[in-house]
Amino acid sequence: MTTILVYRDGKVARADVLEPAWLEDGSGVFVWVDIAAPGPDDARLLRDVFGFHELAIEDAMAASHHPKLEVYDGYLYAILHGIDFRAAEHEFATHDADFFAGPNYLVTVTDGTSRTIPETQAACERNPRLLAEGPMALMHRIVDTMVDHYRPEIDKLEERIDELEESVFDAVETRATNQEILELKRDVASLRRTILPQRDVLSRLGRREFPQISEEVSYRFRDVYDHVVRITDDALLFHDRLSAILEAHLSNVSNRLNEVMKFLTIFSVIFMPMTVLTGMYGMNVPLVHFPGGEGAQFWWILGIMATLSTSLIWFFRSRRWL
Amino acid sequence: MTTILVYRDGKVARADVLEPAWLEDGSGVFVWVDIAAPGPDDARLLRDVFGFHELAIEDAMAASHHPKLEVYDGYLYAILHGIDFRAAEHEFATHDADFFAGPNYLVTVTDGTSRTIPETQAACERNPRLLAEGPMALMHRIVDTMVDHYRPEIDKLEERIDELEESVFDAVETRATNQEILELKRDVASLRRTILPQRDVLSRLGRREFPQISEEVSYRFRDVYDHVVRITDDALLFHDRLSAILEAHLSNVSNRLNEVMKFLTIFSVIFMPMTVLTGMYGMNVPLVHFPGGEGAQFWWILGIMATLSTSLIWFFRSRRWL
Amino acid sequence: MTTILVYRDGKVARADVLEPAWLEDGSGVFVWVDIAAPGPDDARLLRDVFGFHELAIEDAMAASHHPKLEVYDGYLYAILHGIDFRAAEHEFATHDADFFAGPNYLVTVTDGTSRTIPETQAACERNPRLLAEGPMALMHRIVDTMVDHYRPEIDKLEERIDELEESVFDAVETRATNQEILELKRDVASLRRTILPQRDVLSRLGRREFPQISEEVSYRFRDVYDHVVRITDDALLFHDRLSAILEAHLSNVSNRLNEVMKFLTIFSVIFMPMTVLTGMYGMNVPLVHFPGGEGAQFWWILGIMATLSTSLIWFFRSRRWL
Amino acid sequence: MTTILVYRDGKVARADVLEPAWLEDGSGVFVWVDIAAPGPDDARLLRDVFGFHELAIEDAMAASHHPKLEVYDGYLYAILHGIDFRAAEHEFATHDADFFAGPNYLVTVTDGTSRTIPETQAACERNPRLLAEGPMALMHRIVDTMVDHYRPEIDKLEERIDELEESVFDAVETRATNQEILELKRDVASLRRTILPQRDVLSRLGRREFPQISEEVSYRFRDVYDHVVRITDDALLFHDRLSAILEAHLSNVSNRLNEVMKFLTIFSVIFMPMTVLTGMYGMNVPLVHFPGGEGAQFWWILGIMATLSTSLIWFFRSRRWL
Amino acid sequence: MTTILVYRDGKVARADVLEPAWLEDGSGVFVWVDIAAPGPDDARLLRDVFGFHELAIEDAMAASHHPKLEVYDGYLYAILHGIDFRAAEHEFATHDADFFAGPNYLVTVTDGTSRTIPETQAACERNPRLLAEGPMALMHRIVDTMVDHYRPEIDKLEERIDELEESVFDAVETRATNQEILELKRDVASLRRTILPQRDVLSRLGRREFPQISEEVSYRFRDVYDHVVRITDDALLFHDRLSAILEAHLSNVSNRLNEVMKFLTIFSVIFMPMTVLTGMYGMNVPLVHFPGGEGAQFWWILGIMATLSTSLIWFFRSRRWL
Repeated sequence: MTTILVYRDGKVARADVLEPAWLEDGSGVFVWVDIAAPGPDDARLLRDVFGFHELAIEDAMAASHHPKLEVYDGYLYAILHGIDFRAAEHEFATHDADFFAGPNYLVTVTDGTSRTIPETQAACERNPRLLAEGPMALMHRIVDTMVDHYRPEIDKLEERIDELEESVFDAVETRATNQEILELKRDVASLRRTILPQRDVLSRLGRREFPQISEEVSYRFRDVYDHVVRITDDALLFHDRLSAILEAHLSNVSNRLNEVMKFLTIFSVIFMPMTVLTGMYGMNVPLVHFPGGEGAQFWWILGIMATLSTSLIWFFRSRRWL
Repeated sequence: MTTILVYRDGKVARADVLEPAWLEDGSGVFVWVDIAAPGPDDARLLRDVFGFHELAIEDAMAASHHPKLEVYDGYLYAILHGIDFRAAEHEFATHDADFFAGPNYLVTVTDGTSRTIPETQAACERNPRLLAEGPMALMHRIVDTMVDHYRPEIDKLEERIDELEESVFDAVETRATNQEILELKRDVASLRRTILPQRDVLSRLGRREFPQISEEVSYRFRDVYDHVVRITDDALLFHDRLSAILEAHLSNVSNRLNEVMKFLTIFSVIFMPMTVLTGMYGMNVPLVHFPGGEGAQFWWILGIMATLSTSLIWFFRSRRWL
Repeated sequence: MTTILVYRDGKVARADVLEPAWLEDGSGVFVWVDIAAPGPDDARLLRDVFGFHELAIEDAMAASHHPKLEVYDGYLYAILHGIDFRAAEHEFATHDADFFAGPNYLVTVTDGTSRTIPETQAACERNPRLLAEGPMALMHRIVDTMVDHYRPEIDKLEERIDELEESVFDAVETRATNQEILELKRDVASLRRTILPQRDVLSRLGRREFPQISEEVSYRFRDVYDHVVRITDDALLFHDRLSAILEAHLSNVSNRLNEVMKFLTIFSVIFMPMTVLTGMYGMNVPLVHFPGGEGAQFWWILGIMATLSTSLIWFFRSRRWL
Repeated sequence: MTTILVYRDGKVARADVLEPAWLEDGSGVFVWVDIAAPGPDDARLLRDVFGFHELAIEDAMAASHHPKLEVYDGYLYAILHGIDFRAAEHEFATHDADFFAGPNYLVTVTDGTSRTIPETQAACERNPRLLAEGPMALMHRIVDTMVDHYRPEIDKLEERIDELEESVFDAVETRATNQEILELKRDVASLRRTILPQRDVLSRLGRREFPQISEEVSYRFRDVYDHVVRITDDALLFHDRLSAILEAHLSNVSNRLNEVMKFLTIFSVIFMPMTVLTGMYGMNVPLVHFPGGEGAQFWWILGIMATLSTSLIWFFRSRRWL
Repeated sequence: MTTILVYRDGKVARADVLEPAWLEDGSGVFVWVDIAAPGPDDARLLRDVFGFHELAIEDAMAASHHPKLEVYDGYLYAILHGIDFRAAEHEFATHDADFFAGPNYLVTVTDGTSRTIPETQAACERNPRLLAEGPMALMHRIVDTMVDHYRPEIDKLEERIDELEESVFDAVETRATNQEILELKRDVASLRRTILPQRDVLSRLGRREFPQISEEVSYRFRDVYDHVVRITDDALLFHDRLSAILEAHLSNVSNRLNEVMKFLTIFSVIFMPMTVLTGMYGMNVPLVHFPGGEGAQFWWILGIMATLSTSLIWFFRSRRWL
């Protein structure tokens, strides 16, 4: 679906068809063409009306690409990514946004799932001044909105890590903890891989490398760049924290094994001598009796057992095993 | 085997023998000479007819070399690698492709196993325009096809990692999981080592460092470069994921050990006191009787055992061991 | 709350209202405006009176931002961070300090919790010469004080690591040790993430990149930079030390498990044969007697037990298990 | 021992004494002086006849130094390293080769153990053209031979890693495996430390930084550089592989512990209830009898034991423990 | 304590008081002022007589600082560190040496514990030519001596690592091994942190960045730089080796646990069936007899036990557990 917004004489209107005359220099018109979920017709439009380079059009049509920034003769071509966390599949989904920014037009190509484009279109219709500043300012606005949508995803991620950090020492269900750590690690890794190349593109947009970008607009791109740098820092910090959590978790599992084994050891060490003692007095050979009458024998043996276990427990205490 | 494609007056023809006149400036001819599995005769051709540098010829003859890009007087010399995953040996096989790109010829030297060369030759015969654009455009096309062949190998690798990630928590056969992780790690490491130096060569080809490469062709090489960067990113992500999987696996093995030990401990702790109890009432000394007649003794002892084990189980429950 | 210090004719005075005339070139006045916990009125002041850029004002109003340094037309805008260790929440809290440094004014915006600003204000009132040197010298002084406040936090951190290092081998409460390591790792990671971007900003301030910064003031900023580099080095060293402590701790836990298991093993190995022996002489079948009369049997069995356990202990000694 | 090869009028001859006249510009002579295991006399020669810098001479006399490349007035001074794997001591031995390359002489200083120098001397005597190309071409040839001697050492290392990788899952003697991994890690680490600084020196020799190095010779040095890069890549890959092998090995050891513990647990769990049962029917109190006559009691108990162990084994099977 | 060496007309003399005239240009005098353990008087000297910058004086007075190199108007200011290994506290102690190098003077400020300064002073008095070469040559000599003093400390460290490496597989006292590894790791980490920033300063001194440093002196600084690079390489190698040793140690501890557990398991598995067997023939129910008379029963049971244990041992052998 193609949406065309035309800015002329301070007003914004939707158009159904793109008039090639608008693209001419000095037409006094600024056009924003958004193509959502592009089809072959759209490819033809990009090729024949705008005259974009074949490779750029191919990239824009393709589903997924590395962020990049290319200067072609007369227009800039950029790919950037929005992110969405798909809870069901436990992964960060990225969706491409392709930008062709010419002297008096901006063409955006997306897969149609991004919230950013409709939001910006609505804002432009409410406030025509947003379009008056030209293609790079509009592109900045779209990218800025896109990056703002990152924040809630980052916050959700942080919350999950916070929860994990608090629960890691009380974790009973170690298997679930394990799985949660593995999933979070994958999420953070994929976030880092997504965000890093975007940072490079935004840094170049803010560096005043291109005559199309005025000083004012480069300030704004630098501002977006700062947001992305912050997100990168967060991602690195998340990575460090998850590593530390995993280490704590593993060390915890070892501790618990230690505890279990100590328990078994103490129990065995107390009861094994008792078993031998009762075994000895169960032998069918003349037994050596303790002083006192026949009736005292049983109590003697009980007494020995009690003494033995008490002193063993005392021994364990002294070695700080209990 | 040497295959010679000659482009002249808009037509493509195969030739059996290379005519030195074709290589002259202004001959209006463009020649693509492909040498598969080169022998001593081919080395002589490269030396005597083309006049290539001795070191470049040696490199081209040798089986395996680091990707590189050298500018010699009048021609470019590049080595790039295709990859093939050899399932049997569980490793990424790389095969060298050597390129000598002069003003009106392209010489490629391979070991003859690459699918890329015959595919491109067939495409050129079907569509002579592919040759019309000159040696660098043809080289781009070959490299592009070569890099496209990477994708399925990467996808297979990703599938194996996906499978591993899903199965790691249910893994019974830990030894097989171990071996699979080790093999995948080796594959990903060798993929990274293969891909990284290629990226450098492609980056230089796209950077317009060489007058032989027109702006148009440099766009195309930059496009290939972007593909390779994406593959590098994937390889890094695979590496991170495998590390996380290994950690999860190890942590899993520890958990299972914990479970086994807990089971043993609980069992031992329940049965050891019982053994002592029966031992005591098996002693050949006058026993202290429980209230009730002779016949009640057995039931008393059974009752004590039941009480003991119930309360121990309750104790384990309260410590969350069961 | 806004605090205005005005320096005129070698004297410092507090002012309630900012007179726009002071900001004019050649007014001979130097003004320091500090805005603590800024509200909408303050934003208006920054926009209308000073004419700062919208994005810079937004950043200054927002709670938390990445350190940065921007040159706008006629003034520098910088964000730097003070740190405070919040013991209760176990984390390094950073609070933004925003600086707008113009030709004859300095505007600082903080959240009002920093000790640095009131300390510097008091110092300026006591010693007007501090203001006489101009906005960058004043900014240096504030930043210097801010960085000096880092030191005690770093020292506290180091003390905790020292304590941990000493106690790690005696640790009984491994769970608490675990938690302490996890917390320290998080603290050190967050310290590193906080300090690194500050270093970049300070390095640029010391590099004489900006005409506003005289050679003399750049020496001073370089001095602050050196302090920050030292803190970064400390943070890296802390990180290394914590990793080594964790490794030692884990290795310790393993050792203790080993000890416990050895104890259990030795005990079991000594008592299990005894149990079998007493079991054999408790069988209700005619027993094979040892030489000597009936009364000697019990002593024979006791003797065998003693011999058995002595030789087993001797065996463990010889294998260095005891 | 000093060996002097003199090239004059297309012929190569050995000389016993160096004639200072040969070193003069335009003498038409090219001299290669090799000093093996240098003594004080040699230091004097370098100082008085060649006039080399004191520090360079000191470095050349010393046993072991970091690879480096210095340009002095009128000559280049380089240190590079050959390697030898000393099987006995399990380490890579490096031996320095020092080069002084002037306009018409090359002085090499080694410890006299390198095979490279005699091989090159013999080659030069057989083929005087090797000397005709001047000092840098000769230096290239020596360095090239030296680097070629690396290959077999690398291959031996690779073989050992291959063997280890195959055997790691069958390893019974875990202690020996451990030691082998530790040794290989040390060898690979020392290889990396040896090779990396050489790479830097060779890269500078190939970069045409020095007027002494003609374009032709710089191609050749670049070729050597490529070989060294390949070796570096191999070393990194070895490092990665060894890390993966160690992880697999550790994980293997854990698995085996798991197996042993499962075995113990299953055995204990089956036999402990039996012990209690026999204990109960060994008590000296009136026993509760099973139906059937006196003779059936024994078989009843045997039957209960059989049932118990069968059902426990079935239980373990169902939990996939067996 | 201040020591003043004055070089005039080829002679060196000690002076008690510094005459300001000496510092004038063209005085023909070269002065080396060494201040050990500086007090307020010394600060005044540096400020009033030499006119050094306030910040540099503060740094020189302070106990510990990051190595750095600053160019002030008319003099260079550098901080470098000597190291000393304090065996008692198990750490590398660094002591600052501050250098102010002007046109005809060198001022050094140390804490008075360095051996380097007195050694160099004595050498200068014996050999006045050392002072004749000017301040940078003298500074080189001091730094060179300082770096030479590193070597024995590095060698001691290496020896400790060598010993550890040899003993790690025989280690009985795992706790002591643990502690030794932790301490060595800390030492190596602190060595690296100390040495790395020095390297940067020395690299700048050797790079001919400063007109004060002649080509000859820059050769010498580059020589010192090479020594420091070598030490850095050693430190990195030590780090790698310690990591490998720790891994080997941990893997060793696991192995020993495995051995202990195998021993316990084998013993338990052999004796538990025996216990049950004797229990059965100890039951107070009519027992099923083995063929042969009453007297044969005992031997039958012994025989069954022997057969059982032999076959279990054979089973363990076949599974390679023994």
